[in-house]
Amino acid sequence: MGIGEVIGQLFIIFAVAKLAGEVFQRLGQPPVIGELLAGILIGPHALGWIGGPGGALVGLFHDPALAQEALGLVLHVLAELGAIFLLFFVGLETRLSDLLRVGARAATVAVAGVVLPFLAGAALMLALGHPTLEAAFVGTALVATSVGITARVLGDLGYLNSLEARIILGAAVVDDILGMIALAIVTGIGAAGQVALLPVATTAALALAFTAFVAFAGTRVVRRFSCHLARLHIRNAPFVVAVTVCLGLAVLADVIGLAAIIGAFLAGLAFAETREQYALEHQTLPVYELLVPMFFVITGASVDWRLFLDGSLLGLALVVTALAIATKAVGCGLGAWGLGLRSMAIVGVGMAPRGEVGLIVASIGQGTGALPPQLFSVVVVMSVLTTLVVPPLLPLLFRGHAAPAPSTPLSADDPALAAVQDGRLPDL
Amino acid sequence: MGIGEVIGQLFIIFAVAKLAGEVFQRLGQPPVIGELLAGILIGPHALGWIGGPGGALVGLFHDPALAQEALGLVLHVLAELGAIFLLFFVGLETRLSDLLRVGARAATVAVAGVVLPFLAGAALMLALGHPTLEAAFVGTALVATSVGITARVLGDLGYLNSLEARIILGAAVVDDILGMIALAIVTGIGAAGQVALLPVATTAALALAFTAFVAFAGTRVVRRFSCHLARLHIRNAPFVVAVTVCLGLAVLADVIGLAAIIGAFLAGLAFAETREQYALEHQTLPVYELLVPMFFVITGASVDWRLFLDGSLLGLALVVTALAIATKAVGCGLGAWGLGLRSMAIVGVGMAPRGEVGLIVASIGQGTGALPPQLFSVVVVMSVLTTLVVPPLLPLLFRGHAAPAPSTPLSADDPALAAVQDGRLPDL
Repeated sequence: MGIGEVIGQLFIIFAVAKLAGEVFQRLGQPPVIGELLAGILIGPHALGWIGGPGGALVGLFHDPALAQEALGLVLHVLAELGAIFLLFFVGLETRLSDLLRVGARAATVAVAGVVLPFLAGAALMLALGHPTLEAAFVGTALVATSVGITARVLGDLGYLNSLEARIILGAAVVDDILGMIALAIVTGIGAAGQVALLPVATTAALALAFTAFVAFAGTRVVRRFSCHLARLHIRNAPFVVAVTVCLGLAVLADVIGLAAIIGAFLAGLAFAETREQYALEHQTLPVYELLVPMFFVITGASVDWRLFLDGSLLGLALVVTALAIATKAVGCGLGAWGLGLRSMAIVGVGMAPRGEVGLIVASIGQGTGALPPQLFSVVVVMSVLTTLVVPPLLPLLFRGHAAPAPSTPLSADDPALAAVQDGRLPDL
Repeated sequence: MGIGEVIGQLFIIFAVAKLAGEVFQRLGQPPVIGELLAGILIGPHALGWIGGPGGALVGLFHDPALAQEALGLVLHVLAELGAIFLLFFVGLETRLSDLLRVGARAATVAVAGVVLPFLAGAALMLALGHPTLEAAFVGTALVATSVGITARVLGDLGYLNSLEARIILGAAVVDDILGMIALAIVTGIGAAGQVALLPVATTAALALAFTAFVAFAGTRVVRRFSCHLARLHIRNAPFVVAVTVCLGLAVLADVIGLAAIIGAFLAGLAFAETREQYALEHQTLPVYELLVPMFFVITGASVDWRLFLDGSLLGLALVVTALAIATKAVGCGLGAWGLGLRSMAIVGVGMAPRGEVGLIVASIGQGTGALPPQLFSVVVVMSVLTTLVVPPLLPLLFRGHAAPAPSTPLSADDPALAAVQDGRLPDL
C-alpha cells in the first residue's frame, strides 16, 4: 500500500523533532531551532531519511519522480496543517480586547519595528538586482516578531512584569497583525504576478476587510453565541466548532487569495474571547504538539544546505541577518524613545527574533514560486540566526537592571511563569 | 500548489463528520454511524465532494488518475493516523491490571463470543464458495465488540454498575485482545498469500510474542520509568513520549507484518499504567476528535453504495448481519449461563455492536487486497447495522429490571457518567 512507509516517515519526523527539541532545550536554546536543524539533517538534501523517492510508492505511481511528488504532497499537507494550528494557537493567545487596550507606546514600537526592517530588507534586495516581488517577500519576512520565543526568554529571566516586557509583548502582538497584513498584500501581489496598482489596492482592501470583519464581527459572534456551544450534543463541542471554523476560515482565506494561516489566526483571535470558558488552548495544545514540529522539520528538510558552499550566498545570509537585527533594534528602540538607553536596547533586541513567522513567510514565498531557492534559504537562515542570537544577548542587557517587583512570586509553581515556560503568552 | 485544495477537502470531511455526528446524537444514535453515512454520501461514488479527481493536483501529476491517486494517498494516510489514535486511545482505556483482574465469567463470555461468530462467519463464506482468506477476514470482522458504543449505551441507561454491565465491559476488553490476535493472524496469512502451516504458526507466534512482550514488558517499563518522564525538558513530555512510542510501535508492527493499529493499541495499553498521572487520555482526546472522524468519513467514502443495487449482495449483507447478531448473542449469552434469561440476553445483545473494530478489519482486508469490494461493503454494512440495532434494543431488555444502587449518584455532573457520555470506559 505504501501507507506503512509514509507512517514510518511521520514517525521519524516526529521522533527526531522531539529529540532535537529536548537537546536544544537542555542547551538553553528554543526547541524550534533544533527541529529546523534536524529537518535539514534528515531531509532529502542530506541524510535522505525523509522526502526521498518513496520505495513502495513507486509501484503505485509507476515513476520514482511521481512517487516522490506524492510523498511530498502528504508531507506538505501535514506541514500546512501544522502551520494552521500554530497560527490558530497564536490567535487564541491574542485577545482583541488586549490589542485595543495596548497603548500608543506599543503601537509606536510595532510600527517603527515593521516599517524600518521592511524598507531596509526590500531596498537591499532591489539594490542587489532582485525583482520587486522577491524584494517584497524578503522585506515581509523581516517584519514579524516571534512572540513565543520573546515571551519565553523574558519569563526565564524573571522580567515578565517589567515595563520593557509589557511593551515588547504588546508590540509583538500588533507587529504580528501588521506582518500578517503585509504577508496578505505580498501574497496577493505574488498571485497577481506583477505589481499593478489596482490589484494591490484590491488585495490590500480585501485583506484589511477580511481581517477586520473576522476580527471584529467574528469576535462578537463568538462572544454572543459561545454560551450556546455547550448545548451541542457532540463531545467537546466548543473545541470541535473552533477547529471547524479554523479550517473553514483557512480555506476561505486561501480561496480569496490570502494565506490559509491568516484565516487560522483570525479564527483563533475570534475564539480567544471564549478560550478560558472552554479551555480551548489546553485542548489545542496536544494537536499543536503533534503537528507543529512536523511543520518545522519539513520546512528544515526543504533547505538545501549545499547552497551555502557558495560563499557569496552565505555572505548574503549573514548580511540580511545583520540587517534584520539592526533595523528591528533601531526601529523598536526609537519607538521606546525616552525610556533610557538600556530599556531602548532591551526592547530593540527583544523584538529581534523572527522565528516561525519568518519561516512561514519563506515557505509561502517558496510555495508560490515567488522566492527562488537561494533567497528561501537566506530567509530561513535569517529566521534561525535572529532567534538564536536573542537568548544569549538579552540576559546581558538585563544584567544589573533592578528586577521588577513581581505581582506574584515567580516560583516554578507560578502559573504565569509556567505559562511562559510553556512558550505561551501571559495575559497583560 | 494544490495544497489549498487538499486542505479544503479536509475541512469538508471534518465539518461534515461533526455535523452528521451532531444530527445522529440528537437522534439518539452513535455519532460514528453519522460519520460513516456522511462519508458514503460525500464520497466519490455519490456526491463526489471528496476523493474525486483533484483539480489543481492534475497539473502536478500530469494525469487525472495519478492526481486522484495522490489525493487518495493523503486521505488514506490521515485515515490511518485516525485509526492509530483511535486504537491508542482504546489501549489507554484498557489497563493490563484490569484485564488480569477480570473474572472467569468475563473471559468465558469473551471466548464464546469470539469463537462462535468467527466459525459461523467463516463457514458461511466457505459454504458460499469464497476463498479461505476472504472467509477468515469476514469471520475476523465478526469477532470484535465495539467497547465505546456498548459502554455509552449502558451509561445512558444508568446501568453502568449492574452485574451485566461489568461482565459486558470486562468481556469486551478481552474480546478486543482476542480480536486483535485474530486480525494479526489473518493479516499475516493475507501477507503470506496462502494458508501454509509454518507461516501461520510463525505469524501467530510472532503476533502473540509481540503482543505479550509489549503488553507485559512495555507495561513494566512504563510503570518503572514513567516518573522520569517529567524530568524531560520538552513541553508535555509524557504525552509526547507516549505518542512517539505509539507511532513507533505502529510502524514496528507494520514492519513485522502485523497491523499498525495493533502496535498503537499495545502502546496505549503500556501507557494506561500512567494515564492518570499524566492525563494522557485527556491530552489524546483533542487529537482523537480531529483525526478519528476522518477515519470514519474516509472509510464510508470508500463504500460503493451502488453495489447494493445488486439484490443478492444486499441479501448477503443482511444474512451476515443477522448471523453476526445471533452468534454473538448466543455465544455471549451461553457464557453468561446461570444468571437468568434476561441477563443472558442483555449480555448477548450488549456484545453485538462491531462498530469501528469491524470497520478496521474491513479496511485492512480491502487495503491488502484480501477482501474484494463486495465483501468489504458487506462487512461495512454489518458493522453499521450491528451497531445501529443495539441502542434501541438494549433499553427494551432492561425495562422493568431493577436499577442497581449506584455507588455514586449518576447525575449529569457525575464524572463516571460524564466519562461514559463522552464514550470513554469507566474504571470498573
